[in-house]
Parts: sequence; structure tokens; C-alpha cells
Amino acid sequence: MHKIQIKTSRRSETVDITPLLKAYLKDVKAGPGLLTVYCPHTTAGIAVNENADPDVQTDMVSFLNRLIPQGGTRDAGFRHAEGNSDAHIKSTLVNPSQTFIVEDGQLQLGQWQGVLFMEFDGPRSREIWLKFVTA
Amino acid sequence: MHKIQIKTSRRSETVDITPLLKAYLKDVKAGPGLLTVYCPHTTAGIAVNENADPDVQTDMVSFLNRLIPQGGTRDAGFRHAEGNSDAHIKSTLVNPSQTFIVEDGQLQLGQWQGVLFMEFDGPRSREIWLKFVTA
Amino acid sequence: MHKIQIKTSRRSETVDITPLLKAYLKDVKAGPGLLTVYCPHTTAGIAVNENADPDVQTDMVSFLNRLIPQGGTRDAGFRHAEGNSDAHIKSTLVNPSQTFIVEDGQLQLGQWQGVLFMEFDGPRSREIWLKFVTA
Repeated sequence: MHKIQIKTSRRSETVDITPLLKAYLKDVKAGPGLLTVYCPHTTAGIAVNENADPDVQTDMVSFLNRLIPQGGTRDAGFRHAEGNSDAHIKSTLVNPSQTFIVEDGQLQLGQWQGVLFMEFDGPRSREIWLKFVTA
Repeated sequence: MHKIQIKTSRRSETVDITPLLKAYLKDVKAGPGLLTVYCPHTTAGIAVNENADPDVQTDMVSFLNRLIPQGGTRDAGFRHAEGNSDAHIKSTLVNPSQTFIVEDGQLQLGQWQGVLFMEFDGPRSREIWLKFVTA
Repeated sequence: MHKIQIKTSRRSETVDITPLLKAYLKDVKAGPGLLTVYCPHTTAGIAVNENADPDVQTDMVSFLNRLIPQGGTRDAGFRHAEGNSDAHIKSTLVNPSQTFIVEDGQLQLGQWQGVLFMEFDGPRSREIWLKFVTA
């Protein structure tokens, strides 16, 4: 298992980690197989989405913040005393990991896709864990 | 990696791709392992849900359209100029891929489960990428 | 493929299945690889989140129940006659499975992470399917 360190700079943001994944696959001389990208934190997640127009990621983050406000909804608050229940819920809805297809050592992504670390309770130092399994 | 082509016919819909996955596993004479089903598009996703009563899938699509309207919510619109930010967000919440267990070449699904391509910005020609890894 | 049986006791709840996964990996003397944890039901899912403060899981379940009420939203109901469309939608948003990294037979989880079976239409007897693939 390989560990990547990143630093986030805001409470909610997306970090494009695609270049880090490509560099890892090159380093280990990966052939065909599957790459699992895993977030060991409970207030962040891994997503795949467009990394061409930055407005897409801005819209995603803004929408999630309106859907799941930090202080809870008008009808009901949260019980967890740390004040970050919203971030835990966002983590589960986005998902803590993604698994990718690898061919000839190349990460297989669609034309507009990038792999995004989604921070919901930053800024923090974060880890991402990678594991490649040969087909 | 194997590529499947499908065509969707509406802006939002579900397409049952279970038979296509079973046919692929038969073609490659798969043994035991994992099958990753990957959507290379940023405005669609892969889900697993009931394919007995079609009302379940209708309810899912309708609910997602009410939760994430194309034009944004009453409080706030979207910035992305293509007018499909809702579809990008739905893609991330549903997930772009799913990984399945395979035994003796058979896709392991629960009694009521089917694998669904979820289109959020159609109609379009779409691809689904498959990769089988032996246990 | 290994099958685990559990019983849930309420309509909506989380069950920490982490010890069951660790026991399985020990039994099969797993080395390095990937473990897929799969829910064969269409009204439940597998999540990864904090299992230190139980309020986090309570907040997650409560929020999902407010976001996706059993009877539908004020604007629109559900068509599916069994009255559990909410549970099907929650299952898709949470995800029916998760894939984990395994090293030296040890499930690799972050410090605060546990693996949760999320029941959305209980109480019921449920199965969880496990498959380990060596790297």
C-alpha cells in the first residue's frame, strides 16, 4: 500500500489528485489491473468528475453545503458535539473510495474525468491510500 | 478492458445493463474474481437496485430530479454554463462505478438486484468499461 | 465468496460489521490484496464512517430520513406500492458495496473508521457477501 500526503486549505474543497495516481502507477510499473484509491478519513471522500471547467466542482461543493448545512437543517440540528456531522454525511454520500481500471500501466479515465479528493472539514493534512492489484 | 456501447433516449433514465455484464463474463470464461463496471462519463453513473417493479427506478429518478433540479434550487443557481451541473452532482452521489463479486463465471447479485446505467444528461451515446480480475 | 448473516432490529439503523470482516481475513489467512464487501439487498447499503461517537451514526440516519422521508416529500409521493422507495434511494446514495485495502491480512482502515451495514427497511435478516482478491 502506498500513502500520499496532501494539505487542504479550506473547510470544503476539491483537490485534483489525478497526477499523483498516474505518477504512482508509473513508479510501480503497473500492468493491467485495478487501482483502489482509499480515503482513511471520515470527513472527506474520493469522487470522479469533470476537471475542465472549475465551475463544475464549485457547483458540487456549494450544492452539498446547501443540502447538508454545517449546523443542520431548519427542522433539526445534529447531536455530534464536534460540529462536523455534515462532513461525515457528505463523506458517506460521496464515498470514501473509488476503484479504477488500469491498462498497460495507464489509469483509464474518461475524456473529461479527473479524480478528486473532496475535503469537507478542512483545512487539514490528509492521506490517500493506494493499492494496485494485477489482473 | 472491454467497452460496451449503449444509447440512452431521455435526459434522465435508467438502463438495465445486467445482461451485457453476464454476456461479457461468459465470453471471457471468467472464474472467481472481481468485476469492475466503470462509467467514463461525468454526467451519468452506475447503480445497483431493484429491477422487478419499474416504479422503483422511476421513483429514484424522480426523487433525484426534485432533490437536484437542473436549474438549481430556489436559494441558489449553478455557475457552470453548460446547464448540466445537476447531472454532474447526481453522477458523484450515485457513483461512477461498482465492483461485483464473480464466482464460477457468474455475476453474484442479490435476488432483486440489477445493475443500472443511470443517465442524467441524455439522450446520448454512452460507453461502459469492464475489467475482470481473477481472485 | 463468504456469506455473513446479521439481524437488524429497527427500520433504519447502522450495524458495525468491522469485527466480522477482520475475523474473515484471519480465517482465510489473507495476504495483501483487496476485500470487496457487498450487500445483496436493494434497501440497505455498506458505508464507512466514524464508530467512536455513536452520535455520528445517529445524525447520519436521522439526516437521511429527513432528506428522503418514507412517504415522499411534500411536493411529490412515490409510486412503488411497497412503501419503501425511500429505502431503495438511500441504498443507491450510500452505495451497495465498498472495497478495502488489505496488507499482511489486516484490513486497512483509518483511525476513526468502521465499516457499517446501513439498514433502511428493517428489521430483517440480512446477508453480507465478502470476496478477497490477492494483489
